[in-house]
Amino acid sequence: MLRAVARQSPHASRTVPSSVRAATSVGLHKGRRASSVAAFNWEDPLAASELFTEEELAIQDTARQYCQERLQPRVLEAYRNEDYDRKILLEMGEIGLLGASIQGYECAGASTVASGLITKEVERVDSGYRSGMSVQSSLAMTGIYEFGTQEQKDRFLPELAKGKLLGCFGLTEPNHGSDPGSMETVAREHPTKKGYYALSGTKTWITNSPISDLLLVWAKLESTGKIKGFLVERSQCPPGTLETPAIKNKTALRASITGMIQLDDCPVPVENMLPEVEGLTGPFTCLNSARLGISFGVTGALEDALSRARAYALERKQFKGNPLAKYQLIQKKLADAATDAAYGTLAATQVARLKDAGKATPEMISMVKRQNCDRALANARVLQEVFGGNATSDEYHIGRHVANLFVTQTYEGQSDIHSLILGRAITGIQAFV
Amino acid sequence: MLRAVARQSPHASRTVPSSVRAATSVGLHKGRRASSVAAFNWEDPLAASELFTEEELAIQDTARQYCQERLQPRVLEAYRNEDYDRKILLEMGEIGLLGASIQGYECAGASTVASGLITKEVERVDSGYRSGMSVQSSLAMTGIYEFGTQEQKDRFLPELAKGKLLGCFGLTEPNHGSDPGSMETVAREHPTKKGYYALSGTKTWITNSPISDLLLVWAKLESTGKIKGFLVERSQCPPGTLETPAIKNKTALRASITGMIQLDDCPVPVENMLPEVEGLTGPFTCLNSARLGISFGVTGALEDALSRARAYALERKQFKGNPLAKYQLIQKKLADAATDAAYGTLAATQVARLKDAGKATPEMISMVKRQNCDRALANARVLQEVFGGNATSDEYHIGRHVANLFVTQTYEGQSDIHSLILGRAITGIQAFV
Amino acid sequence: MLRAVARQSPHASRTVPSSVRAATSVGLHKGRRASSVAAFNWEDPLAASELFTEEELAIQDTARQYCQERLQPRVLEAYRNEDYDRKILLEMGEIGLLGASIQGYECAGASTVASGLITKEVERVDSGYRSGMSVQSSLAMTGIYEFGTQEQKDRFLPELAKGKLLGCFGLTEPNHGSDPGSMETVAREHPTKKGYYALSGTKTWITNSPISDLLLVWAKLESTGKIKGFLVERSQCPPGTLETPAIKNKTALRASITGMIQLDDCPVPVENMLPEVEGLTGPFTCLNSARLGISFGVTGALEDALSRARAYALERKQFKGNPLAKYQLIQKKLADAATDAAYGTLAATQVARLKDAGKATPEMISMVKRQNCDRALANARVLQEVFGGNATSDEYHIGRHVANLFVTQTYEGQSDIHSLILGRAITGIQAFV
Amino acid sequence: MLRAVARQSPHASRTVPSSVRAATSVGLHKGRRASSVAAFNWEDPLAASELFTEEELAIQDTARQYCQERLQPRVLEAYRNEDYDRKILLEMGEIGLLGASIQGYECAGASTVASGLITKEVERVDSGYRSGMSVQSSLAMTGIYEFGTQEQKDRFLPELAKGKLLGCFGLTEPNHGSDPGSMETVAREHPTKKGYYALSGTKTWITNSPISDLLLVWAKLESTGKIKGFLVERSQCPPGTLETPAIKNKTALRASITGMIQLDDCPVPVENMLPEVEGLTGPFTCLNSARLGISFGVTGALEDALSRARAYALERKQFKGNPLAKYQLIQKKLADAATDAAYGTLAATQVARLKDAGKATPEMISMVKRQNCDRALANARVLQEVFGGNATSDEYHIGRHVANLFVTQTYEGQSDIHSLILGRAITGIQAFV
Repeated sequence: MLRAVARQSPHASRTVPSSVRAATSVGLHKGRRASSVAAFNWEDPLAASELFTEEELAIQDTARQYCQERLQPRVLEAYRNEDYDRKILLEMGEIGLLGASIQGYECAGASTVASGLITKEVERVDSGYRSGMSVQSSLAMTGIYEFGTQEQKDRFLPELAKGKLLGCFGLTEPNHGSDPGSMETVAREHPTKKGYYALSGTKTWITNSPISDLLLVWAKLESTGKIKGFLVERSQCPPGTLETPAIKNKTALRASITGMIQLDDCPVPVENMLPEVEGLTGPFTCLNSARLGISFGVTGALEDALSRARAYALERKQFKGNPLAKYQLIQKKLADAATDAAYGTLAATQVARLKDAGKATPEMISMVKRQNCDRALANARVLQEVFGGNATSDEYHIGRHVANLFVTQTYEGQSDIHSLILGRAITGIQAFV
Repeated sequence: MLRAVARQSPHASRTVPSSVRAATSVGLHKGRRASSVAAFNWEDPLAASELFTEEELAIQDTARQYCQERLQPRVLEAYRNEDYDRKILLEMGEIGLLGASIQGYECAGASTVASGLITKEVERVDSGYRSGMSVQSSLAMTGIYEFGTQEQKDRFLPELAKGKLLGCFGLTEPNHGSDPGSMETVAREHPTKKGYYALSGTKTWITNSPISDLLLVWAKLESTGKIKGFLVERSQCPPGTLETPAIKNKTALRASITGMIQLDDCPVPVENMLPEVEGLTGPFTCLNSARLGISFGVTGALEDALSRARAYALERKQFKGNPLAKYQLIQKKLADAATDAAYGTLAATQVARLKDAGKATPEMISMVKRQNCDRALANARVLQEVFGGNATSDEYHIGRHVANLFVTQTYEGQSDIHSLILGRAITGIQAFV
Repeated sequence: MLRAVARQSPHASRTVPSSVRAATSVGLHKGRRASSVAAFNWEDPLAASELFTEEELAIQDTARQYCQERLQPRVLEAYRNEDYDRKILLEMGEIGLLGASIQGYECAGASTVASGLITKEVERVDSGYRSGMSVQSSLAMTGIYEFGTQEQKDRFLPELAKGKLLGCFGLTEPNHGSDPGSMETVAREHPTKKGYYALSGTKTWITNSPISDLLLVWAKLESTGKIKGFLVERSQCPPGTLETPAIKNKTALRASITGMIQLDDCPVPVENMLPEVEGLTGPFTCLNSARLGISFGVTGALEDALSRARAYALERKQFKGNPLAKYQLIQKKLADAATDAAYGTLAATQVARLKDAGKATPEMISMVKRQNCDRALANARVLQEVFGGNATSDEYHIGRHVANLFVTQTYEGQSDIHSLILGRAITGIQAFV
Repeated sequence: MLRAVARQSPHASRTVPSSVRAATSVGLHKGRRASSVAAFNWEDPLAASELFTEEELAIQDTARQYCQERLQPRVLEAYRNEDYDRKILLEMGEIGLLGASIQGYECAGASTVASGLITKEVERVDSGYRSGMSVQSSLAMTGIYEFGTQEQKDRFLPELAKGKLLGCFGLTEPNHGSDPGSMETVAREHPTKKGYYALSGTKTWITNSPISDLLLVWAKLESTGKIKGFLVERSQCPPGTLETPAIKNKTALRASITGMIQLDDCPVPVENMLPEVEGLTGPFTCLNSARLGISFGVTGALEDALSRARAYALERKQFKGNPLAKYQLIQKKLADAATDAAYGTLAATQVARLKDAGKATPEMISMVKRQNCDRALANARVLQEVFGGNATSDEYHIGRHVANLFVTQTYEGQSDIHSLILGRAITGIQAFV
């Protein structure tokens, strides 16, 4: 279904994987739509599904089926052991979940909304799994698609779309989290290899870096002082010029793999520099794509938290055999979470539609990224209370969502930073000090 | 414009008032739409206006112009003196703002979204003015339109639409606020007047009751014990059978007039009973219409609070001449308010669209009524902090919005009650104790 | 009782008014203490009364009796009509409530805790009444007591203590709320009157200014540029040099009177300048005294709000005849309010004890002023929800408390300003921009 | 120092360990007190230390030194690996930290405040370490001390005090978290062993159960249906009658060990039943002791979170080289946390003093347990934001505190349950449904 959507793309039409077709023919979404007529559905309280096309709903169903059947069963062990299975990206590639909104290059060419719904289904299982996918789709692939040469696109995008090539995105540095403009990584003319730049510097908190084949690294070009993007191919790096140690013992997102990128005069051919962009426009374009995806994704995690809290509250009985669900204090928690998930979905959908119409702005994305992450986290924490002491058992999954969602609030623009971006847009005055 | 929208209605087409035509030709909305392309507009951060039709935008502009030019200048004195000018409803009727979503009967026949946008513009000035209008449009007119006989409709709706006849809605009783099913007002066969019911009982917190000509009163029919609606015509009531004393010294909504309805064997002709409905379905249908209007309205009040806080923060300087707007703590308040106003507008619009498609449910309306009122109130209170001590001056208007918005949170379903309605919808268990 | 406490003061011992003796002999506090042994008292949940001396409890009882018997009955009309009865300060003076912690000069010489308890009892009735008293006691009298000459003290303090002379405190200017160091009011050598300064400038939001006899005005001495305090005697001011117009139509604190101070070359004799202080130390010392009083006072308002909400919740029945008090959502509101009132009382008491031991710092006062005002306001707003629509009637008093408490959060240091004062104390870095 | 405090106890006086003497002679607290005179100390903003005796301060210093020197270095690995070192209780026993407020039986006989300060210092390192200690001191030892026979006390308390015998407390069952009165574990006359009861049932979420030597298990006596306490000695249990499997993969409190207690006709001699108590009074007395300890403890965790956030904010620079500590949004987070920690400490101290005076009630303990846990958790979560993405590294410790503090909010009375306990105390109506 996903790639079939890209009817106009000859690349895509040849490669619709059979698994997608099967999933689509199941037509899960049809029943859902029919039942939404004038009935309240607590899983979609404001009937956001009415805003989606049949194709988008089909894509969501495909993604949901994969996620629930293939990802959900392995997340518990993966999280416990900080163990990310790189085959996941291959599986996602097979059914067309990667780079889904890109036209051509064996990508699905779906709408931004469809892409957001995929994100939501993956994050319904785990924010870490979604992070792994976002990095591939929104950061690495978007960077190449938007700013790469035709040759770069032809060479890398199809393999990235299939999950055969793993990408990552090196922007954040140890001393420059919210302020990438101060980055220290530098690209200078290679002292010995003609036609090559030499990259030196350190990036950190880079999702997928330890397993990436293709690293999109942002560095300051020494000759101009301007930030440029470089496609670092691990297989071409001489020993000692590229290290990507994993960061272990994370307190969250343990089902994704995170690491550093250490570059020491790493040679990168001139033709691997992204030509079409300079300064922070490049990374910010990619980040905006990812942020919009996050604003969809976290509503999936919140909906899963709500669904689990509801089930627990209905099953768990205290005091004269009443289920917890009968308590006013519990009902309010559920009502609040359902409301914020529904509002967040509508807002993300609106911005995605605007994006496809060429009318979205970065501030809009700041707004939905900030709000949806903040509310998902706040509500997940409140829902955690429903589980009482049992929340401490990882088998209820709520602790994992809570820990993960904190990270979504901080990465790709910490919440306060987005507040100040919005404040600047509202007042015309910047207050970053 | 408004009534012109109802092209299909012969009643309406004859009566488009010239003031509306003039307002529409100004075309305020056109500039607004053009500028929304890929630019961030802090007054419409998520470009909700993209969801509105040209007609809806034109109606909003007409309403906005009237409200800003005619209502805004008198609200300060009205609020100070608890003085509601009944000519306001006449003016609103002249330009077609009353019962705007009703088809025929000299009403505009506009969409529910258009009706919501009118509400929003009125409440941008004052929640009390909006209350006065809601009672006329959503409660009195909707009740007759949905449940009245053809004769009742023909006789009352056009006059109500013009604001020549003032209506009110008598449901709440002194001892039964959140639980109208326990009402004590009763209608029995009149002991002496054949073909008449005798109504006895007391209603309270009834907007417009002291100035109403036509009172839609809900009472239990003695013979069946079921709740029915009665159209009480003040001019037909013998002395001593109907009193509507005003409630004074209110702490909020002082620009609207509120009172009681005291019925003492008040004779009401049998043909003034609404035939088509029994039980709480009648009043709840009206309330749902009003609640959806409120969910639009409060975003108007919040946007006005935001606009005033922003202007104050830009103008007011402290510490080395910096405007307050430069302070991070101020910017966060503005960003939060803008976000909640934008989200609330999207959600109310979604439910209004669903309503016109026959797909809205009462729980959806509970959700947007609760959330939009809660968030408008919470944000207005935070914005009030921006004004510091000056908030104590009523000329800054913020104190008025804060006081008013508290009432919106409590009337037509107090927030906690809506939480429990949602909780019941989510869990299947009712927890009203 | 109050003045009797000051046993060491010959001034005081002569003037114990009989009304105080009578009040004390009633011994209300004794029952209270006895019952606090190992029983939970929802009005004093953490038994703060155990921290008070017998004398302090007696003073609190005296104050409470006066406030409940004499102030409570007139507050409703006063608030409605913005009408402050200046006799109130005379009454307070008669029983020794003014300047109660000052030693000598016919003041009670009580502890800072006792003074705080008086404040609490007055604000239990109304924050405006407490404001009127705070200005007299903490601002005007403290200023003279701490920084005046012996002659100034002898001349003014006894009359101020009796409430025969009304004082006020002129610091805030129209353009300098949170930043008094930028004040524009100036004192220069009088051009024509030898031995006089000429004061010119405007102060605003000055409690009691329209009825004050003695105005403590802070102005920059032209010759040095340093801030100094001046005692302006209204009776000595030539026509046209001093105007104190009232500010009307306030949205809160309507039971107190507020105004401006407009000085136009107003002549003030050299001997009316406070000699012992220069710069912001003077006003800040007074403000710190007042702020500590506020931190006690607002817990009184909150306790009254709680008491009224509890009574309403017990009496009001909805759904099957259950009182609101049976609902979990209501009980949580009450529990939260009781907790914050109790915590706030303990914290204010601790700082008051430290002050009497010479160990209190301004940052401590910022902490308790900020927190107690913020929590009193937040909880009062939540308690307001208990009343539903009835909160709109001023006869339930809750709306008045809510409106008043907002002002306490903004005056004498807006909450955010105190946050930054604390932030500076914690980090060593100032962030006022 | 600790045991030396118990001057009246001949047992204690013989056993003051040298390590305590050394710690005391260092006199850390003296410098602290001296500097608190009229200076603001961000680590003790309201000078709570002024409320403590020299002895209490000395005990706190001893505990702090042990915790920082011996516990802090091992917590990271312990938490990562869910590995609790049972030697910790032995070490704590050596320096007198266990059962510190018990008189005699080789316990320190210190005040409840002193005991609370020990708790605070342990939880400053980790809530799990504190949990392990609380179970030993407040639950197991308090149970025996309050309700045991002289023989039980003599036999068990000294060994428990030294940490040579490890205790636990078996109350919670899998289906009865907040409602222990519905427990299913039963004690009946042993079918074959005369003079023995046979205990059967399952307890869960029991801290220390897998390593306990002495298990205080609450069970319903079959003959009366009343709850009684039983001292189960592991060494005396025949194979198959007692199992205590550990619960692994916890999402929090991973530095403590938690497990189940599975009893299958486990024989317990009649003389091991606690004779002096019946019903829930027994476990609730123990829980109240533990809860008061928790209310001190969590302020320690919060203070540590604050201290770490402050240090990070001062060191971390973004945007033009400014430290995060210069940002208003950061300063507010620090100010809020400092305030709540200070208020919580005062309130816990007040209740501890009341307890020693015989004036504390369970509701007071509910209040401080609920509030201090809620505020510690809420603030720790906000402080976590200061660290941005780095919070995801466990080496910053903040993620651990956040995860732990959630559990403190849920165990020994989930926050909402305490709200309803307080609501009942305030209204006289119970609302547990």
